[in-house]
Amino acid sequence: MSDHPFVHRRRVTWADTDTAQIAYTVRILDFAMDAVEAWWEETIGLSWYAMVVERGLGGPWVHFDADISAPLTPRHSLESAVFVEKVGRSSLSFRVEGTRSDGVASFVAHLTTVFVDRQAWRPISIPDEFLEPITSYRRSVGS
Amino acid sequence: MSDHPFVHRRRVTWADTDTAQIAYTVRILDFAMDAVEAWWEETIGLSWYAMVVERGLGGPWVHFDADISAPLTPRHSLESAVFVEKVGRSSLSFRVEGTRSDGVASFVAHLTTVFVDRQAWRPISIPDEFLEPITSYRRSVGS
Amino acid sequence: MSDHPFVHRRRVTWADTDTAQIAYTVRILDFAMDAVEAWWEETIGLSWYAMVVERGLGGPWVHFDADISAPLTPRHSLESAVFVEKVGRSSLSFRVEGTRSDGVASFVAHLTTVFVDRQAWRPISIPDEFLEPITSYRRSVGS
Amino acid sequence: MSDHPFVHRRRVTWADTDTAQIAYTVRILDFAMDAVEAWWEETIGLSWYAMVVERGLGGPWVHFDADISAPLTPRHSLESAVFVEKVGRSSLSFRVEGTRSDGVASFVAHLTTVFVDRQAWRPISIPDEFLEPITSYRRSVGS
Repeated sequence: MSDHPFVHRRRVTWADTDTAQIAYTVRILDFAMDAVEAWWEETIGLSWYAMVVERGLGGPWVHFDADISAPLTPRHSLESAVFVEKVGRSSLSFRVEGTRSDGVASFVAHLTTVFVDRQAWRPISIPDEFLEPITSYRRSVGS
Repeated sequence: MSDHPFVHRRRVTWADTDTAQIAYTVRILDFAMDAVEAWWEETIGLSWYAMVVERGLGGPWVHFDADISAPLTPRHSLESAVFVEKVGRSSLSFRVEGTRSDGVASFVAHLTTVFVDRQAWRPISIPDEFLEPITSYRRSVGS
Repeated sequence: MSDHPFVHRRRVTWADTDTAQIAYTVRILDFAMDAVEAWWEETIGLSWYAMVVERGLGGPWVHFDADISAPLTPRHSLESAVFVEKVGRSSLSFRVEGTRSDGVASFVAHLTTVFVDRQAWRPISIPDEFLEPITSYRRSVGS
Repeated sequence: MSDHPFVHRRRVTWADTDTAQIAYTVRILDFAMDAVEAWWEETIGLSWYAMVVERGLGGPWVHFDADISAPLTPRHSLESAVFVEKVGRSSLSFRVEGTRSDGVASFVAHLTTVFVDRQAWRPISIPDEFLEPITSYRRSVGS
């Protein structure tokens, strides 16, 4: 039994496009990060900005990858579904599945972050207040 | 016997940084693409822009990934070495090794492009005029 | 008697911020352009992308300016109101008033575009099909 | 009797372009800012990053504008000449003249920054150590 994953919707705009008249490859990573950031605010209730500025926590990204199967253009908006693939002691791995509003799958991306203390820049355990909603989300929508 | 790889140098600027006071993760992909673009112009003698606008050729990127080992900031410039890892019939895979000007390794990225006919958006063989300098580069600097 | 102007709402995200932990200055222009692009689709019923790719029309921007009175951060979203200030034979001037979701005025920007034939790259009269909804909008919300 | 202004050279890349196959309007502002940042490091001997992170000084930009006379593409690189137009008690106004490598003038931009104390976010006098090289530059190359 599973719930629906969080889906982040956004327009693909003129600013995203390049000379090939499709969204520039690098924007795909921007879109995936944007989806995880929106998921974070909804699931954890704290923006990345607040985490860093107000709480002194930080999460540098140590890995990203994507496979791209269809181009994005302003003709269609983008719907990005967010999944938590792995929960480590300090690290979290996300999968983002990007689908165009015409139903065509566009990309699958993976992003891994590591929690660090921003003073010492050393890995720390994922704080319990974050761990609980993250594992709960993972349980309910699958990984 | 091997030659030195092509190395693309660039400043890391204010515009690249985020609230964590390091280059935003997505910029790493921008830097890797920028290095491959510069390599292309030097090795093939044709800009991506000219390829698309004047020649009707295109190379959508179908895969990218990166592992990040140290943050980038404006304190150091970036030196990105470009390698050709694989040469397929239609596809090319690059590896970009990004090193800070203080000698610290920052990231290793991989990028795969596929040659297509821009009208039909179908894979085509890598044109011979490109294949020759690409395989020659690969032979001389290693993969 | 006047109607409400079109207001474009968007999040301010991590990706928008810089080392000063506010949205990077250049993003302000991005936000203003994004608001006008959204206005265009709503008012004219055609995206900039479709205008260029399908209709061969183009609108290079020949002027922009902004005065910035308060910084933007992810703490607040942005609401940008769009006004048509001037309608020339070939040119259109917009004013965008950016307000934070806490009610603080953030910026006032102006943007001027010129209609051109993309082949000849020469100014042309604003097509009637665009002129009508544009002047109608201007009449109803003021300039 | 006058010296040559500082000129910042940079490539215009694939990443800068949009569906119209010219550099996206917003990139013009990025280019102008980049030129002033490079000028700053050369003239003042301190990066914006170091000013903020190490010295607690900050310079929010309160105004920008540009008039654009010719598009930029990867066909030509960009040479941006930097001038100091006005020196106030707290504020500095720059003019950036962007010229393509084929000699065609592309844009003239103006940028105004205000020195603030980053704790109080209040205007402060331009520190003497900056004022001296700035006024000296202005005297020698004109405003």
